[in-house]
Amino acid sequence: MGKAQKTAITPTRQDDYPEWYQQVIIAAELAENSPVRGCMVIKPWGYAIWENIQRELDRMFKATGHKNAYFPLFIPKSFLEKEAEHVEGFAKECAVVTHHRLEASPDGGLVPAGLLDEPLIVRPTSETIIGAMFSKWVQSYRDLPLLINQWANVVRWELRTRLFLRTTEFLWQEGHTVHETRDDAWAETMRMLDVYADFAENFAAIPVIRGEKSAGERFPGAVNTFCIEAMMQDRKALQAGTSHYLGENFAKASNIQFSSRSGELKYAHTTSWGMSTRIIGALIMTHSDDDGLVLPPKLSPVHVVILPVFRDESQQTEVLDYCRRLEAEIKKRQFNNGPVVVEVDDSEKRGGEKTWNWIKKGVPIRIEIGMREVTEDKVFYGRRDLSPMEKKAVPRGEFVFVVAQILEEIQQNLYDRAFDYRRERTLRFDDKDKFIKFFTPKNAEKPEIHGGFALAHWCGAPECEQWPAENLKVTIRCIPLDGAEELGKCIICGGESNRRVVFAKAY
Amino acid sequence: MGKAQKTAITPTRQDDYPEWYQQVIIAAELAENSPVRGCMVIKPWGYAIWENIQRELDRMFKATGHKNAYFPLFIPKSFLEKEAEHVEGFAKECAVVTHHRLEASPDGGLVPAGLLDEPLIVRPTSETIIGAMFSKWVQSYRDLPLLINQWANVVRWELRTRLFLRTTEFLWQEGHTVHETRDDAWAETMRMLDVYADFAENFAAIPVIRGEKSAGERFPGAVNTFCIEAMMQDRKALQAGTSHYLGENFAKASNIQFSSRSGELKYAHTTSWGMSTRIIGALIMTHSDDDGLVLPPKLSPVHVVILPVFRDESQQTEVLDYCRRLEAEIKKRQFNNGPVVVEVDDSEKRGGEKTWNWIKKGVPIRIEIGMREVTEDKVFYGRRDLSPMEKKAVPRGEFVFVVAQILEEIQQNLYDRAFDYRRERTLRFDDKDKFIKFFTPKNAEKPEIHGGFALAHWCGAPECEQWPAENLKVTIRCIPLDGAEELGKCIICGGESNRRVVFAKAY
Repeated sequence: MGKAQKTAITPTRQDDYPEWYQQVIIAAELAENSPVRGCMVIKPWGYAIWENIQRELDRMFKATGHKNAYFPLFIPKSFLEKEAEHVEGFAKECAVVTHHRLEASPDGGLVPAGLLDEPLIVRPTSETIIGAMFSKWVQSYRDLPLLINQWANVVRWELRTRLFLRTTEFLWQEGHTVHETRDDAWAETMRMLDVYADFAENFAAIPVIRGEKSAGERFPGAVNTFCIEAMMQDRKALQAGTSHYLGENFAKASNIQFSSRSGELKYAHTTSWGMSTRIIGALIMTHSDDDGLVLPPKLSPVHVVILPVFRDESQQTEVLDYCRRLEAEIKKRQFNNGPVVVEVDDSEKRGGEKTWNWIKKGVPIRIEIGMREVTEDKVFYGRRDLSPMEKKAVPRGEFVFVVAQILEEIQQNLYDRAFDYRRERTLRFDDKDKFIKFFTPKNAEKPEIHGGFALAHWCGAPECEQWPAENLKVTIRCIPLDGAEELGKCIICGGESNRRVVFAKAY
Repeated sequence: MGKAQKTAITPTRQDDYPEWYQQVIIAAELAENSPVRGCMVIKPWGYAIWENIQRELDRMFKATGHKNAYFPLFIPKSFLEKEAEHVEGFAKECAVVTHHRLEASPDGGLVPAGLLDEPLIVRPTSETIIGAMFSKWVQSYRDLPLLINQWANVVRWELRTRLFLRTTEFLWQEGHTVHETRDDAWAETMRMLDVYADFAENFAAIPVIRGEKSAGERFPGAVNTFCIEAMMQDRKALQAGTSHYLGENFAKASNIQFSSRSGELKYAHTTSWGMSTRIIGALIMTHSDDDGLVLPPKLSPVHVVILPVFRDESQQTEVLDYCRRLEAEIKKRQFNNGPVVVEVDDSEKRGGEKTWNWIKKGVPIRIEIGMREVTEDKVFYGRRDLSPMEKKAVPRGEFVFVVAQILEEIQQNLYDRAFDYRRERTLRFDDKDKFIKFFTPKNAEKPEIHGGFALAHWCGAPECEQWPAENLKVTIRCIPLDGAEELGKCIICGGESNRRVVFAKAY
């Protein structure tokens, strides 16, 4: 066996997937753990990706008629208790504010003081507090639909956390809408699921399956929960966004009533939908490789980085001058409704270190400019979706002319690659033994990467959902919306079923 | 006496300024109180203004080399305690998280459970938690300057709150930077003070005085605090932004040390600076009138609103058609680095109600289009900075050609008006009796509007700062940076002084 090629990230995906994930984040300077249990710090490079995600989603929300607003961080305990399933779902992970000041204790140091009459919960989600406001804002059918979105931080207490995927505090957007009829609310639920799928596929380059959650996986208090599910490179599923039809449940809990066209007082139908910083975890695990982060161009804070390479000061002036002119030309090109974002890295690092630094940060195009390129009026560049060794010299004018096209190609290539990866690892199962084998690691020492998505029949019984969960750590990810009706037998009990669902291990 | 002209807002500024302020906010649908004590809800129109504020400030921060990041909402109590003055300053207004779940109590209902080993404080500001991260990020002088900004919510417990001006939770940005030397940190402190003054004057159209706070008004833990102060229409001062030079205080508290150019280990010099949703309160109180909100065009979510007026369906088609074409033409014009934002209000409200609705929302230009305008190919418009009765008909082509120029004029007019208002109410005092009289309401029943800014000498003694605070509710707003050195006598004690300071009542 030949010596393994050296990679920028240790360990590789194959060797230790969870640790590879952490190391990609560290190497790209995306985020790190903070001294506050379960809370992460999002570093500038990670936050710039989040800003790009926000910009695209916000544009989509506004284009579909939504307006942003802001509601309180705190939810009085009694509000959370208004919807029985809702509070049951969140009670175990609530950060509770009980005091409103600190005061000196007799034995030195400060202790909580000013006990609140009613404890406040740091919002884990805002249905109940927003519902309280909506009940005032909605009086008549003329006030509907009410289409609101909030960008906010939320807190769900977690004991075992992982950067971006599961943290006590996270950033997200939560949409909350109110409608006259079930049909209107249902259409909104689907519209926003489609917005999420559009964003995931066309901006994050992550192919997703749109589907409905089984009853056991529903949002606490929802009538129906829909989701988009993506496959990571360890073949596990990641839920990347959810859209809930809440029926009249929260309208009743918060008393959102309106006088209808016929003059009756009716309960409204509401929806909510959310996408969080978790999507950055999905981005990382879908595209990155053993050399670090790979970013889809449409979400990368920088599209093109120019790295000047020179031996001495006489070269330095000429090379930097060429780089600056190239930068100015590239900036004039348009990509994704804005100028191509280009940066010249003239920091003092050594050439190799600099190059690898940008590879690990996932920038789509790296350009190296030395005296040779200056003399020949060329651009020597590498694409992050190809091997770091695969570089190409092209005339400067040509490069500038096609730079946006190269970015589009990279974007498409990342999507296609992820799509193929998922397709090859999505199998139909009608035999229980094969199903079990599919989800049983062959190598007990490195159990991370095996399995994938199993399309199999499910009879709808909760016990047939529990069995694989308990025995294989496999859950029903969703009942795909695009799946055709098909008669078959439940993969677990053999009972009748008319649709295949997606089984997988999941984040 | 003639009958007073009817105004859209009751009461008027003159009659009851604080209540006028509340009513302007309600009429413009900017915000409202929530059921959570001290926390407000920012409604879509108010939040859209905040988004514009964010966009402009964020651009300025990035242009001065800062990057955004995100740090935890929670601060362990021990972190807050690291800087003695800092914790003393915030201990009385801390929301304290003591538990991490809710559990069923024997007598029904849920009670806090899962007591934390160490209480967590919901951040009132983030110097200490960000400092803990910076101490890891900063190792060498090569890592400096470190220029970070965070957009976030913060909580400072308040018993008496007022929308935008003083709420328990508010939104803000907080800049945190680390530097090699005192000079570098000092230059940063001043640079960001200038960014705030630039934003206030050129975007919010609020003239401000840049100055330093006296020791008693400093940020807890700062070496120097600088601020921008504006005069509201009740002649009270409002602090609209602050920039702090923190010296080595927080570097020592958080152990931010670096190996310097000479190889020694040194403490860094840090700064912090912030502007919050309070600036929206300043906007309201600087420009609005007895008909409601007046928005500076550069921060208004909508620049131009088009109101179709028609009698019947036959008119409706023609009028709406003309409005849509006008909208498309106006959209092509540029204002403040983007297209002019124009909206056609084709809602079902009656004409008068519609017009007044947009007047109360403060939109800079209102256009009314009826059959007459269609026939004559004209635009009948009113400017929000002029009287609602003052309207003008101009040829359509001419209007479209000058629309951005009109917006610029409104922007400038609002600034000039506010500048004149402040100038006329800023007086120099050298006589203590006159100084006292200036700050004593003439009409005890309506004490709101009197006084202004008094430029007077102050010897620097804390007692001479306390005396007017206790006896007149007047504080030293700042020691102006632009003020010339001038020998004189302290307005309170007659002691020597070499500079005038700004005295005023304040928010």
